[in-house]
Amino acid sequence: MIVRLRVARILEELGQRLNPTVRSATAAQRRIRRALRPRNPAQTIAAGFLFAMFAGTMLLMLPVATPGEESATFLEAWFTATSALCVTGLIVVDTPTYWSGFGEGVITALIQLGGFGVMSFSALLGVFILGKLNLRTRVTAAAESKNSDFGDIRTLLLGIVKVSVLVEAAAAVVLFLRFWLGYGETVQEAAWNGIFHSISAFNNAGFSLYSDSLMRYVDDWVVSLTIAGAVIIGGLGFPVLIELRKRFRRPHHWSMHTKIVLWGTAILLTAGTVFFTVVEWTNRAVFGDLDPADRLLAGFFHSVMTRTAGFNSIDVAELHPVSWLVTDILMFIGGGPAGTAGGLKITTFAVLFFILWAEIRGDGAVNIFNKRLSRSVHRQAIAVVLLSLAAIMCSTVFLMLITDFGQERILFEVVSAYATVGLSTGITADLPAAGQVVIILLMFIGRLGPVILASSLAVRSRRTQFEYPKERPLIG
Amino acid sequence: MIVRLRVARILEELGQRLNPTVRSATAAQRRIRRALRPRNPAQTIAAGFLFAMFAGTMLLMLPVATPGEESATFLEAWFTATSALCVTGLIVVDTPTYWSGFGEGVITALIQLGGFGVMSFSALLGVFILGKLNLRTRVTAAAESKNSDFGDIRTLLLGIVKVSVLVEAAAAVVLFLRFWLGYGETVQEAAWNGIFHSISAFNNAGFSLYSDSLMRYVDDWVVSLTIAGAVIIGGLGFPVLIELRKRFRRPHHWSMHTKIVLWGTAILLTAGTVFFTVVEWTNRAVFGDLDPADRLLAGFFHSVMTRTAGFNSIDVAELHPVSWLVTDILMFIGGGPAGTAGGLKITTFAVLFFILWAEIRGDGAVNIFNKRLSRSVHRQAIAVVLLSLAAIMCSTVFLMLITDFGQERILFEVVSAYATVGLSTGITADLPAAGQVVIILLMFIGRLGPVILASSLAVRSRRTQFEYPKERPLIG
Ligand SMILES: [K+]
Ligand SMILES: [K+]
Repeated sequence: MIVRLRVARILEELGQRLNPTVRSATAAQRRIRRALRPRNPAQTIAAGFLFAMFAGTMLLMLPVATPGEESATFLEAWFTATSALCVTGLIVVDTPTYWSGFGEGVITALIQLGGFGVMSFSALLGVFILGKLNLRTRVTAAAESKNSDFGDIRTLLLGIVKVSVLVEAAAAVVLFLRFWLGYGETVQEAAWNGIFHSISAFNNAGFSLYSDSLMRYVDDWVVSLTIAGAVIIGGLGFPVLIELRKRFRRPHHWSMHTKIVLWGTAILLTAGTVFFTVVEWTNRAVFGDLDPADRLLAGFFHSVMTRTAGFNSIDVAELHPVSWLVTDILMFIGGGPAGTAGGLKITTFAVLFFILWAEIRGDGAVNIFNKRLSRSVHRQAIAVVLLSLAAIMCSTVFLMLITDFGQERILFEVVSAYATVGLSTGITADLPAAGQVVIILLMFIGRLGPVILASSLAVRSRRTQFEYPKERPLIG
Repeated sequence: MIVRLRVARILEELGQRLNPTVRSATAAQRRIRRALRPRNPAQTIAAGFLFAMFAGTMLLMLPVATPGEESATFLEAWFTATSALCVTGLIVVDTPTYWSGFGEGVITALIQLGGFGVMSFSALLGVFILGKLNLRTRVTAAAESKNSDFGDIRTLLLGIVKVSVLVEAAAAVVLFLRFWLGYGETVQEAAWNGIFHSISAFNNAGFSLYSDSLMRYVDDWVVSLTIAGAVIIGGLGFPVLIELRKRFRRPHHWSMHTKIVLWGTAILLTAGTVFFTVVEWTNRAVFGDLDPADRLLAGFFHSVMTRTAGFNSIDVAELHPVSWLVTDILMFIGGGPAGTAGGLKITTFAVLFFILWAEIRGDGAVNIFNKRLSRSVHRQAIAVVLLSLAAIMCSTVFLMLITDFGQERILFEVVSAYATVGLSTGITADLPAAGQVVIILLMFIGRLGPVILASSLAVRSRRTQFEYPKERPLIG
């Protein structure tokens, strides 16, 4: 029996349903529908994000968005709106003191919109890509398209909404109870803090209503683990969550994509936890008087935040510079595709790693978990990584030219923005206006660029022959 | 007519001549010869380098190698011998004052041996690789093997010796005359300085007999351009030099390999010159009172030294940190394969660039200068770059952990060692012993690793089919 990537099949099937014209419409109908349909879903989503960014900026510039007399400047509003929409979490003004309840509401809405937008965009692009490929693999696909996990596009989007609401609600309830019962916040305060932070966590946004981010909860296991859990779930990505729900007890049936994301997440989290805990163990500026178990918790929390939530329960500015460098690497890698995480995605680096492994072993084909990796994916992964490195290097050089911050802090800030992480050594607000604009552009490009790029490349790659059906993880 | 890489054909033809057994020997003869022949040329060269390193270390530890009473310590001798043999040029002791004439002679011999060793090793490995491939492409190759540029292996090695002696002699004469007539050195001094620096330059070693490297000649156009010229010629690599000599007036007949190296060199040199000159223009600690033309010369000289000679006519420690970062990138790229330059080689990055370009254009095949790039080369280039990045990152993290130097200086030092450049922000001698050992290992791995890796991968890659004859530049 031919084994194929299940998520791919789901999306492929969905692609067929989305394109009924291909099968049933007359030529005239087809032409009309094509004219109405946007030529490229990437253009649609980019336009949508630009519009939301513009609207968010305008709303945050209203006098009602700030508590005092003065309104936010254009740059402050633009930076904050972009950071919220791109679920980054970098800030130039202190969220709880600078913005009013209305302002915080706008930020929450932008986060939710941005998180949902990217998640469903990636999933739909997957549909679009695989639908296109499908036209060329119709023969093999036809045999398998009977078993469908989704009815239509509505089911896909509803599924994403359901997962989001479910995880956010669960986290919000736990946080609410903890803030209310454990910290003496009023019911309203605790409820708003619970909701805001659960949304911020699941969407990997990293915005906090506390001026010290989550540093006051560094040794609170309930808060830390709830936030970390929501972050991890959001960062796995929708295809993984769906497959976990459908086939939780049959791990040997999981797709290559799911296996890569789960293994990658586990390995990166463990490695990060060990590294940060060991390196900072005696750094009192970071761990203070924490007992060993709490240091481990704080190390784990920081490790989770690099994929790419961006809360901090320890003072990032006080970390050893080598921890910054390792954080850079982890942020650059990021989370799973088609989720709320940023970065270049675990699958992208897994593909590179397995290419390397195949080379060292002298294998002709790149095999992952007993499946052969589609060759067009190799070049996609390379292209995404190279262009991202180029963007990061150029921005770093530019920011080093216009500021006096060293390479360590600048690189950290740039990677944090591009991977939409939101951690900072504390220089964001001190950057000159041109520098902040560069960070805004990096957040926007970093959020949409890799996924649009990888998708476009997948659609455009010409294939001249087929051997036997391959598996392909999503890239970017 | 089928067009093939000329250098490849030369080496392939040579490979056939090196393996007369395949055609004429009896089975018994074949078995004996195979037993005598080392199983892997990579093992031979690595063993040779290890032996030379050991011998050089012993010689430099002799009392006669230093002018005073005390002999060099083991670590000083080991570091210096490795740096000379791997034509790196990083130093922990001041060459002119610490070593005697005998010591300088040993260093010169090690440089010449290392430069010649790597150059001929790469060329011979090319023969070995292409000879192997040839067994499988015999049919197409047979039609083309009549026209041979080399008679046998002796011609190849003699050619390398000839080029080396020719360029070194020419540079030595110019430098001798300049030092003698222009700077009032005695005939003996000028001669020794001329010979030493021309050998050091052509072999991209970067060792200098002046304590300030070449800073005293920052505005001397004769010395600067002579050294730069020898460096560039050595860094182009033997295959390019041979092809330039044979087909200088027919550039449209040049191989893909030669075109990539020449264009890459021109682009990198220009970009580096412009960047360094512009960024440091007003930095008096670097350019002092130099007039504009001399600043351009100094910027050009530094740009040349990043591929990967490692002399300096300006104070590297005083460069703007952003210049360090850009120098890192240029050093990492390095020069042309099968020459005296280090780094990952221009062709490696050109391959990655053209893969990216093909992806962006949506091309199925990667075409360079109207030739299709062999697909196995893609993965080779990726493997070399990824493993090198891993080595550099791990070393940087380690050195940051055991020292207090910042990321900027550590990364610079590590890249300089791995790419066998020899530029330094001045921390080499201040590294702890463990750090210096890491640098020694980096120099050794950086000098032999990429070329051995790329060659091994090329030999091991299994090919199941052939379309039409492809071109392949040398990688690593
Ligand atoms: K974030
Ligand atoms: K060198």
